[in-house]
Amino acid sequence: MSEIVTAAMLVIGDELLSGRTKDRNIGHLAEVMTAVGIDLKEVRIVPDEIEAIATAVNELRHRFDHVFTTGGIGPTHDDITADAISHAFGVPCEIDPEADRLLEQHYARRGLEYTPARRRMARMPRGARHIDNPVSVAPGFQIGNVHAMAGVPEIFQAMLDNVVAALRTGKKMLSETVHCPAGEGVIGERLAAIQSAHPETIIGSYPKFVDGRFATDLVIRARAPEKLAAARRDVEAMVAELAV
Amino acid sequence: MSEIVTAAMLVIGDELLSGRTKDRNIGHLAEVMTAVGIDLKEVRIVPDEIEAIATAVNELRHRFDHVFTTGGIGPTHDDITADAISHAFGVPCEIDPEADRLLEQHYARRGLEYTPARRRMARMPRGARHIDNPVSVAPGFQIGNVHAMAGVPEIFQAMLDNVVAALRTGKKMLSETVHCPAGEGVIGERLAAIQSAHPETIIGSYPKFVDGRFATDLVIRARAPEKLAAARRDVEAMVAELAV
Repeated sequence: MSEIVTAAMLVIGDELLSGRTKDRNIGHLAEVMTAVGIDLKEVRIVPDEIEAIATAVNELRHRFDHVFTTGGIGPTHDDITADAISHAFGVPCEIDPEADRLLEQHYARRGLEYTPARRRMARMPRGARHIDNPVSVAPGFQIGNVHAMAGVPEIFQAMLDNVVAALRTGKKMLSETVHCPAGEGVIGERLAAIQSAHPETIIGSYPKFVDGRFATDLVIRARAPEKLAAARRDVEAMVAELAV
Repeated sequence: MSEIVTAAMLVIGDELLSGRTKDRNIGHLAEVMTAVGIDLKEVRIVPDEIEAIATAVNELRHRFDHVFTTGGIGPTHDDITADAISHAFGVPCEIDPEADRLLEQHYARRGLEYTPARRRMARMPRGARHIDNPVSVAPGFQIGNVHAMAGVPEIFQAMLDNVVAALRTGKKMLSETVHCPAGEGVIGERLAAIQSAHPETIIGSYPKFVDGRFATDLVIRARAPEKLAAARRDVEAMVAELAV
């Protein structure tokens, strides 16, 4: 098993690029990936356009171990994710018999007509597998290393819960934060030297403004606990010296 | 002048991909672009890695009229946006004399040492122009069609205000929303027919759950007011029929 497993996210929707809607899925996926040991390496937001979606899917699926898409799997004409991913994989987009049956039963139980629009939600690339939707039945789908999920945050999160347990994961990136009372301009050089001395860690510096003064959160990340601890000791020694 | 002017955004930072920090700049840029008549067509989030940033900059700057980056222009070792964009343009990354002078004066006035870390913030690609930073002096920069700005939302917004007035803009995309009391599954087919009849508009359908029932926001967009009005009339007629 490889130590490092990577992922990319493709967020689909005109409404995010126009500013009408603010994304609420990127941060959630990022947190889940970190928690399970997958490195999220890139996120893209693209409009509801077949070529834009298909091009991004093909670029990302060849570069990263897992790809997650959100949005565009509903019943209306602007929901074209199934078509675009079929196009990307060079397979037909067609009604999946099992999804069709699930949806038909779902609407029958609720006494609602199973309209052609609703039936659109049973369409997926030939050869895809369902991703269960415990919220509103219409499934997402997985083909190759691409997982297509809903854009509505509650449904996306439920689908992701169903997907994540089966994913290949890597060695978890561990993370610890040291609070530093000085600003970045004061510690920058010493911090760069610590980073150089600990090449198997990644040290991030995040400024904040507290009580009228700049301070810094120093985030140390590593897969090996002993590397993390060694870098942390040096960072803490630096902060302690500042306080003298 | 072209009717359509496009833009892309490149968001730079490990902290967004790990889930530690939630982006607050994408939605703001999206709103500003829509307001001034620029179509934001793609957003990417990449980590603090020179090659990842430079590759994305080169792909985006050749495909879109404007590119905006956020993040990675501070004083610490993980702030590498100036290096990465220099690399993308094939020019040296060097201390800009005017930025150097501004920063030196700024720290002198505050009685603070002008450390080498702080001086890092005067570095930019050779040939770049400043983007003023009214919040904390350290400038962003523009080279070619790429605008590099801060990741701290307050500074990003101030820099964007300084940039946006000089940008080439296109004909504004107008937008109107019609509230529909029915869910997407009910209106999907009729809405698709309306979209087909109005090819110079873009009709988006956004489900919402209100008082225990699904309803839909129908967003009609077009550059020509008369096209927008014509599509809107058809959408409103559809909604009126539902109410009968």
